Amino acid sequence: MSGVSFADVEAAAARLAGHAVVTPLIESPALSERIGARVLIKPETLQRVGAFKFRGAYNRLAQLSADERTRGVVAFSSGNHAQGVALAARLLGVPAIIVMPSDAPAIKVAATKAYGAQVRLYDRLRESREEIANAIAKENGSVVVPSFDDPAIIAGQGTVGLELVRQAQAAGGALDVVLTPISGGGLIAGISLAVKALSPATAIWGVEPAAYDDTRRSLEAGERVTLKPEARSLCDALESPAPGALTFPIMQRNLSGAVGVTDAEVAEAMRYAFTTLKLVVEPGGCVGLAALLTAKVKPPAGGTVGLVVSGGNVDPDLFAKAIRGEI
Amino acid sequence: MSGVSFADVEAAAARLAGHAVVTPLIESPALSERIGARVLIKPETLQRVGAFKFRGAYNRLAQLSADERTRGVVAFSSGNHAQGVALAARLLGVPAIIVMPSDAPAIKVAATKAYGAQVRLYDRLRESREEIANAIAKENGSVVVPSFDDPAIIAGQGTVGLELVRQAQAAGGALDVVLTPISGGGLIAGISLAVKALSPATAIWGVEPAAYDDTRRSLEAGERVTLKPEARSLCDALESPAPGALTFPIMQRNLSGAVGVTDAEVAEAMRYAFTTLKLVVEPGGCVGLAALLTAKVKPPAGGTVGLVVSGGNVDPDLFAKAIRGEI
Repeated sequence: MSGVSFADVEAAAARLAGHAVVTPLIESPALSERIGARVLIKPETLQRVGAFKFRGAYNRLAQLSADERTRGVVAFSSGNHAQGVALAARLLGVPAIIVMPSDAPAIKVAATKAYGAQVRLYDRLRESREEIANAIAKENGSVVVPSFDDPAIIAGQGTVGLELVRQAQAAGGALDVVLTPISGGGLIAGISLAVKALSPATAIWGVEPAAYDDTRRSLEAGERVTLKPEARSLCDALESPAPGALTFPIMQRNLSGAVGVTDAEVAEAMRYAFTTLKLVVEPGGCVGLAALLTAKVKPPAGGTVGLVVSGGNVDPDLFAKAIRGEI
Repeated sequence: MSGVSFADVEAAAARLAGHAVVTPLIESPALSERIGARVLIKPETLQRVGAFKFRGAYNRLAQLSADERTRGVVAFSSGNHAQGVALAARLLGVPAIIVMPSDAPAIKVAATKAYGAQVRLYDRLRESREEIANAIAKENGSVVVPSFDDPAIIAGQGTVGLELVRQAQAAGGALDVVLTPISGGGLIAGISLAVKALSPATAIWGVEPAAYDDTRRSLEAGERVTLKPEARSLCDALESPAPGALTFPIMQRNLSGAVGVTDAEVAEAMRYAFTTLKLVVEPGGCVGLAALLTAKVKPPAGGTVGLVVSGGNVDPDLFAKAIRGEI
């Protein structure tokens, strides 16, 4: 019993219709030629707020009661979930307070404020974001919106998978493999519910930063492993130290496995996305592409791959360094 | 009598099927909100070679006789046409020599070579690319492939318009305005043939660098005006000094007008494309977006705009400068 089902993903899709962008599938003959398989890119960079996170946030906030809407929501996030909650809250007329680390990418903090949310910065090393958020929620009577371990969040992110399978079918491609970034697992868990319901033979692989490979370790151990990484990852969006309590059993059931990619491999993938795909992708959004380019995940020759590119919110300075080969 | 008709565009589409990418339509709620109209982006950045030029080149080369294919083709171009001809030639097994200025963007020269073409660099200030190309053609008996003033090139580029109108209709949008970059006029002339055939009420506006506004001046003068600009434009792809003999009468018939945008406005549009659209766009590909953002072309409030974003081949250093606000 996972607490969330394919029917929840379908219900989320109905709630999101007309509010979220149905992102297109993109094909690059150059990439497909290089990989030796047809690669169908699902660019959530083109989603509202520049990342898939809007889907889950909107799906969660749309289900608040009238009373809850008045009292508002609080969330903690280093960036993309923050923006997703902030914009969903604005569209639904709900006050939002977002707790963000003081070293979050400036572009993500600025965008969150621009969507009308109140931002409370905290010191990542000295303060607990959970405690801050819970204190705010208690004081205001507001609802905490988790970034991944919540049935409505998982179901909302799952609409990426629903669209991907249907668009691939419309493009004449039966998906052999789907590749998706993993942080806490909300995106891949949701996607896996849709993919396994509509295309059971498709293998689903998760990709995470090598320094934050908690999901790979957890899947191998058969139980949730919590990391205490000492270093930051280039992928600011993928620094979850452990899979979620809700997402992990779904991943155990549906994933073929998970692999880790290094910062250097991610930077190379960002350059490839710039040079060849002409897409602006943030580090965490690039891990699936990195896994393909390094053949850490090898699709069957001549097969079809669904590649989820999850976000494009990257500071200009970091992007400039990546495309100049300075990372 | 223009020498090229809508039927030629339809024939080009049949020739390109399965070879060119049918680029998607992209919608950004943030952009549409800012402009006050629904903006449907046609990103030819996602086309093979990163620009629409592949369409015209392939359409032209696919019509070579067996004998002509053996003798090969020669073209002169600062970049995107070079890559389009080089790749079309490789796909069709035709030898290609491309005459490129020695100060063309390095990324475009490298890509042209990577597609298997032989590159002959020339000095833009001291040599005539036409003379060099004609000498090569005479020596080898090869066919010169013009970059815009050719019926097959115009018809091939016109397939952008064919797709745009049909995709807009499928998305429920009747196009009030179409915005397209202009250099020699091959792209906008071709697009205008398709748009005026399928959606006669749509207004078509061209956008060019303010320093290379030969089309605006020519349309106002009622005859082809040739500029002798002293400065380079940021838009290396749009430095044609005069409209074409074939393209100009088509533009006279079908365009509502043309406007110029400055380098600073183009750089600002590149930043917007990076920050909000998450698209990598080269300077020349951004002029339509610049015209929208500056309200130099103002669509009817609540109307629908088709925005052609023509290419994304930009050197990393220039792109880094643009997104850092150093241009």
